Amino acid sequence: MFLTRSEYDRGVNTFSPEGRLFQVEYAIEAIKLGSTAIGVLTKEGVVLAVEKRVTSPLLEPSSIEKVAEIDEHIGCAMSGLTADAKTLVDHARADTQQHRFTYNEPMPVESCTQSLCDLALRFGEDGEEAGMSRPFGVALLIAGWDSDGPVLYHTDPSGTYVKYRCMAIGSGSEGAQTALQEAYKPELSLAEAEVLALATLKQVMEEKVTATNVDIARVAPTYHLLSVAEVEEVIARL
Amino acid sequence: MFLTRSEYDRGVNTFSPEGRLFQVEYAIEAIKLGSTAIGVLTKEGVVLAVEKRVTSPLLEPSSIEKVAEIDEHIGCAMSGLTADAKTLVDHARADTQQHRFTYNEPMPVESCTQSLCDLALRFGEDGEEAGMSRPFGVALLIAGWDSDGPVLYHTDPSGTYVKYRCMAIGSGSEGAQTALQEAYKPELSLAEAEVLALATLKQVMEEKVTATNVDIARVAPTYHLLSVAEVEEVIARL
Amino acid sequence: MFLTRSEYDRGVNTFSPEGRLFQVEYAIEAIKLGSTAIGVLTKEGVVLAVEKRVTSPLLEPSSIEKVAEIDEHIGCAMSGLTADAKTLVDHARADTQQHRFTYNEPMPVESCTQSLCDLALRFGEDGEEAGMSRPFGVALLIAGWDSDGPVLYHTDPSGTYVKYRCMAIGSGSEGAQTALQEAYKPELSLAEAEVLALATLKQVMEEKVTATNVDIARVAPTYHLLSVAEVEEVIARL
Amino acid sequence: MFLTRSEYDRGVNTFSPEGRLFQVEYAIEAIKLGSTAIGVLTKEGVVLAVEKRVTSPLLEPSSIEKVAEIDEHIGCAMSGLTADAKTLVDHARADTQQHRFTYNEPMPVESCTQSLCDLALRFGEDGEEAGMSRPFGVALLIAGWDSDGPVLYHTDPSGTYVKYRCMAIGSGSEGAQTALQEAYKPELSLAEAEVLALATLKQVMEEKVTATNVDIARVAPTYHLLSVAEVEEVIARL
Amino acid sequence: MFLTRSEYDRGVNTFSPEGRLFQVEYAIEAIKLGSTAIGVLTKEGVVLAVEKRVTSPLLEPSSIEKVAEIDEHIGCAMSGLTADAKTLVDHARADTQQHRFTYNEPMPVESCTQSLCDLALRFGEDGEEAGMSRPFGVALLIAGWDSDGPVLYHTDPSGTYVKYRCMAIGSGSEGAQTALQEAYKPELSLAEAEVLALATLKQVMEEKVTATNVDIARVAPTYHLLSVAEVEEVIARL
Amino acid sequence: MFLTRSEYDRGVNTFSPEGRLFQVEYAIEAIKLGSTAIGVLTKEGVVLAVEKRVTSPLLEPSSIEKVAEIDEHIGCAMSGLTADAKTLVDHARADTQQHRFTYNEPMPVESCTQSLCDLALRFGEDGEEAGMSRPFGVALLIAGWDSDGPVLYHTDPSGTYVKYRCMAIGSGSEGAQTALQEAYKPELSLAEAEVLALATLKQVMEEKVTATNVDIARVAPTYHLLSVAEVEEVIARL
Amino acid sequence: MFLTRSEYDRGVNTFSPEGRLFQVEYAIEAIKLGSTAIGVLTKEGVVLAVEKRVTSPLLEPSSIEKVAEIDEHIGCAMSGLTADAKTLVDHARADTQQHRFTYNEPMPVESCTQSLCDLALRFGEDGEEAGMSRPFGVALLIAGWDSDGPVLYHTDPSGTYVKYRCMAIGSGSEGAQTALQEAYKPELSLAEAEVLALATLKQVMEEKVTATNVDIARVAPTYHLLSVAEVEEVIARL
Repeated sequence: MFLTRSEYDRGVNTFSPEGRLFQVEYAIEAIKLGSTAIGVLTKEGVVLAVEKRVTSPLLEPSSIEKVAEIDEHIGCAMSGLTADAKTLVDHARADTQQHRFTYNEPMPVESCTQSLCDLALRFGEDGEEAGMSRPFGVALLIAGWDSDGPVLYHTDPSGTYVKYRCMAIGSGSEGAQTALQEAYKPELSLAEAEVLALATLKQVMEEKVTATNVDIARVAPTYHLLSVAEVEEVIARL
Repeated sequence: MFLTRSEYDRGVNTFSPEGRLFQVEYAIEAIKLGSTAIGVLTKEGVVLAVEKRVTSPLLEPSSIEKVAEIDEHIGCAMSGLTADAKTLVDHARADTQQHRFTYNEPMPVESCTQSLCDLALRFGEDGEEAGMSRPFGVALLIAGWDSDGPVLYHTDPSGTYVKYRCMAIGSGSEGAQTALQEAYKPELSLAEAEVLALATLKQVMEEKVTATNVDIARVAPTYHLLSVAEVEEVIARL
Repeated sequence: MFLTRSEYDRGVNTFSPEGRLFQVEYAIEAIKLGSTAIGVLTKEGVVLAVEKRVTSPLLEPSSIEKVAEIDEHIGCAMSGLTADAKTLVDHARADTQQHRFTYNEPMPVESCTQSLCDLALRFGEDGEEAGMSRPFGVALLIAGWDSDGPVLYHTDPSGTYVKYRCMAIGSGSEGAQTALQEAYKPELSLAEAEVLALATLKQVMEEKVTATNVDIARVAPTYHLLSVAEVEEVIARL
Repeated sequence: MFLTRSEYDRGVNTFSPEGRLFQVEYAIEAIKLGSTAIGVLTKEGVVLAVEKRVTSPLLEPSSIEKVAEIDEHIGCAMSGLTADAKTLVDHARADTQQHRFTYNEPMPVESCTQSLCDLALRFGEDGEEAGMSRPFGVALLIAGWDSDGPVLYHTDPSGTYVKYRCMAIGSGSEGAQTALQEAYKPELSLAEAEVLALATLKQVMEEKVTATNVDIARVAPTYHLLSVAEVEEVIARL
Repeated sequence: MFLTRSEYDRGVNTFSPEGRLFQVEYAIEAIKLGSTAIGVLTKEGVVLAVEKRVTSPLLEPSSIEKVAEIDEHIGCAMSGLTADAKTLVDHARADTQQHRFTYNEPMPVESCTQSLCDLALRFGEDGEEAGMSRPFGVALLIAGWDSDGPVLYHTDPSGTYVKYRCMAIGSGSEGAQTALQEAYKPELSLAEAEVLALATLKQVMEEKVTATNVDIARVAPTYHLLSVAEVEEVIARL
Repeated sequence: MFLTRSEYDRGVNTFSPEGRLFQVEYAIEAIKLGSTAIGVLTKEGVVLAVEKRVTSPLLEPSSIEKVAEIDEHIGCAMSGLTADAKTLVDHARADTQQHRFTYNEPMPVESCTQSLCDLALRFGEDGEEAGMSRPFGVALLIAGWDSDGPVLYHTDPSGTYVKYRCMAIGSGSEGAQTALQEAYKPELSLAEAEVLALATLKQVMEEKVTATNVDIARVAPTYHLLSVAEVEEVIARL
Repeated sequence: MFLTRSEYDRGVNTFSPEGRLFQVEYAIEAIKLGSTAIGVLTKEGVVLAVEKRVTSPLLEPSSIEKVAEIDEHIGCAMSGLTADAKTLVDHARADTQQHRFTYNEPMPVESCTQSLCDLALRFGEDGEEAGMSRPFGVALLIAGWDSDGPVLYHTDPSGTYVKYRCMAIGSGSEGAQTALQEAYKPELSLAEAEVLALATLKQVMEEKVTATNVDIARVAPTYHLLSVAEVEEVIARL
């Protein structure tokens, strides 16, 4: 007879009899509580659109950062624990700067993604270069443009990353993914991708979409966070 | 079947099956037991007002420090465990001095806030630069003025920070936030903000407001803790 | 459903679901088992009076040290675990000497108090500068005289300190505090403060007050432990 | 009376009364959840064929790496936890490069395999050169060609490796091994081995085999990952 | 509802809800299982008398050391775990020698006692200068003679020490202390103190007192262990 | 009342109330699951014969190493966990090479055996020179020839070694030892010892003995692993 | 209500409520499972006699070392865990050699014994000079001859040592001690002591005493292990 499932979550990095790592699975649950984020790849660049949960009218929406620049040519959208995400973004920023300093060229997007996943995998270890004492409770959509053109990666707390043409994470990810599969076409223009991302976000958000509760960014080929006016212009195009 | 919720609080930094970190949530409970503190942002500066629990007539009220200067241009109000708060304030003071020494200019308020949140996030780790063995049981309202003008940040034990126009923390925070949402206007003068902060504090405090059981400070653009006479003058204006 | 309260005391430094730190609360219980100590602040100086539990007629009362000199200008009365208290006193003595050596002037009383509280807060940590593996089971009344004149601090196992005009700690603290609140007046002379402290101690001690089962010290402006004759003279004045 | 089996999985590296190491056995379970991979040895070289689980049409199949080059003369197919496998592959790549640098010749395939198994065995240890805090949840089929000609190794989470003429790992391994035992002949040509590997994979995969959901690689004598066109050509030969 | 008392003894240095340290209390129990030892202070010096449990006629009584010289001017009687006591005695011997070497004068008896108590208090800590992983299960009666004349200290596993005029430890301590309180007079000569100590020991020992099952030592002003003949002479005086 | 036996296996290196070390006993169980190995000492040298479990016709029998050369003059047969055995063999190889390098002569067989047992004993320790976090689940028959002539040692997970004239380990050890006791004579020639070892192995193996499922080695006076032809020749002599 | 006795054996070095250390007591049980060893002190020297358990006729009796030389002038007989005993003997050999090297004279027997006991006491500690993670499961009879003449010490897992005129350890110790108490006389010659030791061993051994299942050694004044012929000669004298 086995222990009940829940009894495995104490050892942070231990297999269950079925070969599962529960702390990683629970960290993935933390992401399902997070705000929704969407990434769409086009030939002209990558679009990232994120929901911002403005819980009080007295809160400054611009200080909720759910999409961030990593380097000139890489940005990411995040869902899950905010503080964990900041740690990962800072790690990636240091990595990409270090790469520029050492090789005098931008870091390939996959190298940057791999480095974040290495950090994520090391949770529960002791010692100098160890990661956190628990998995990072955060998923990232990493949008970048390097010598291979535009690219979109998805990472999760298990340290796995995969390339997507478009992807959604966070509490609304299920509905958003279904919608994206129907509507996505590889030949989308960047402008069309912005509308697709926002339309999908609109479907899964409880509140009305406004220029203050969503952020849109693009990497085409450099990172650009849309201003309030630009976001309103996209909303108008919906 | 899951373990009951309370069984997760032992591993200080472990996810529950629903993706939650209970020690962080429990630390947030510690703040709900703390004295109330209020921050109000105006164009002329930021006002911090705090309740002081004078539990005995033999106690020296001036030694209860619930509002503190971090640097010339940054102050903070705190709620929760007093000793934890002092540790954070000392950390921030060292950081801001170090910044002045290295760059010969005041530390940006967000950098100071981020540094405090990094420390808060690292709880439960071993090693040289580790934080505490548990989360810091304290929330801060950080008021500052840098090249971007006046600003008000709120930090909590999870290491998350957000900008607010006005915010309340501590045992009376719920009632105070409701009152602030109704009364706050961005065009408030500094003097009006002082009255608003004190009026709100008055609503949620069990005892009558006097110059000995509240403290008021402003960053406009430098930190100033109001003297007893100045506080009495604000009370008079109520 | 929560775990019962007592199940939280194992992790030495872990929050309960209500945001409490039980090991700290239990350490405070240890003080309630200790002998009573009283501090009274006057303009002429600070008086400390302590009960000494002489459990056997063969015991040398003078070797029970419940009041101690930290530096020329600082003394303290203690209640709780004797060995813990000695550790704190030694720490404070080293600190104040180091301060004299480095700055060529006496250490401010608050700096000395803060340093003791920092040590108290660090329990349960590993590493070089860590404190104990559990909270210090001791409360202190720190009496001092520096450039701000006479001052009386109270510290507890949570690492919190507050200024008092007069204060009692230990098993008789509740009754003593009530008595002090009634009788204390800021304009007391040092001689009157000695009588007040001793009279209060007398109310809460089970045994008759004699020159062997109490100690009285004053910082006015330097530390002086009263001789048996001097104590008897105060008893006579009662 | 013994504890039930499942109670041994907590100590990551502890014997059960029957002399078993359950965490290692559970890690082997993790592999049974993985995608199927097949290796076939011929005199002309070694063929590796792997299933790729393309869970969404928006996912980029080429980013699912289930077969990888370690060095010019060594490749491997993997099944189990993706992030663990990447760690092992990176370790092997560093080892083989280091060997070339030190000895100016390719690393023998067995040395490379032994080094991976040493790493796998060290789980649960602390310290500098320690491996993971749990077993690696991954099995590898290592195909190589050195001075002894072509060779195929199988490694598992226990740190054991054995040479095979052909072998299957992952969720379809049982059926695949039965099929391989019937069909395998040592005198197969490389082209025939590719067909055998793919035919076997076809039997155990739930989805129809296409050029996007399988990868084929060969070491003959250097590593070559077949292009989509080449895979389609093999499918055509089926 | 509290855990039962016994459940607190696992964390070696943790408070119970009543503010108690059970491992220390249990270590004190270990002393109650030990052989009885008695110390008597006179103006002419200090007498130590100890019971030796000669469990077999084939055992060499002189190798049971329950009283030991620390330095020329300090000796001690011990009760509890023999090996723990030897560790403490060795520690004290090194300390006193170090003191002579550094200051060219004998170590004050209280400094020596304090140093032993510091070591006792540090149990359960990690690190360089840590003591044992559990409390020392030993009580000491430390007899010495320094510039303040003869002195007798009692130490216990909590790291507390107190001066006594006479004291008994070990399994017969309760009866012995009662007897000593009745018979002790400060004006005893050294010879009378020897008789008092031995007479008291006789009352609480199960076996008949002989020159082989007791040891007597004096510090007057230097340490001297009585020879068999001298002990027999004291027995004769009984 | 005692805990049930099985509850002691968690602390890897802890005595049970009966004075037993269960993890060591469980590791010995792991050996009983292993393949059988036999060692026979003669005046002309030592013979080692081992069973190889060829679980699949596609597996390369030569890659199952159950007998290994440690140095020119020492070999060993092993039973239990394969990866553990490799670790021990590697350790012994490094030791013997180091000995040759330092002393310019072969390492005595007993020194080599002692060194392996020291490693085995250190399990469960932390730190630089620590062994594994659990006992090694392997028994060895160490055959060697040094200045004292041929010798055969048996080691087990407890770190104990003993000299044998002949010995069997692994799942068939019980039956094999009975057979060996009847048939063994010290005056056996090396050729007769090979036949005895193989005949005994034949009795306890489930499968028919062939040149692919057994290995035979001799140290006479140097290590030699018999070729397939040589093994077949021994089988013929049966 | 207390925990049942057996629940204390987990913390390797923790007091029970009665002040006992169960792991040490359990280690003492391990010795009661060991082979019997006897030591007899005479004016001419010390005799050690040990039982050797020859569990198989194929085992080499001379490789069972239950009596060992530590230095020219010190030998010891051991009972309990063989591998633990070897560790202690090696430690003692290094110590005595180091002493000769440093002081150019043989190490006093008591210093050597004390050093072994210090090592035994340190179990369960971390760090550089720590002993084992559990008590040593071995008792020693240490026979030596130094400037004080011949001497016999007994050590046990608690780190206690005592001088004996004669003593027995191991499974037959109880019966042997009774027999020794009756028969021992201090005026025995060395030859008579050998007969006494062997006769006592004979009484408690299940098997018939032969030259292969006992070992006899003497320190008179140097260590000498009796040859088979010499042992047979002693048996003849029985």
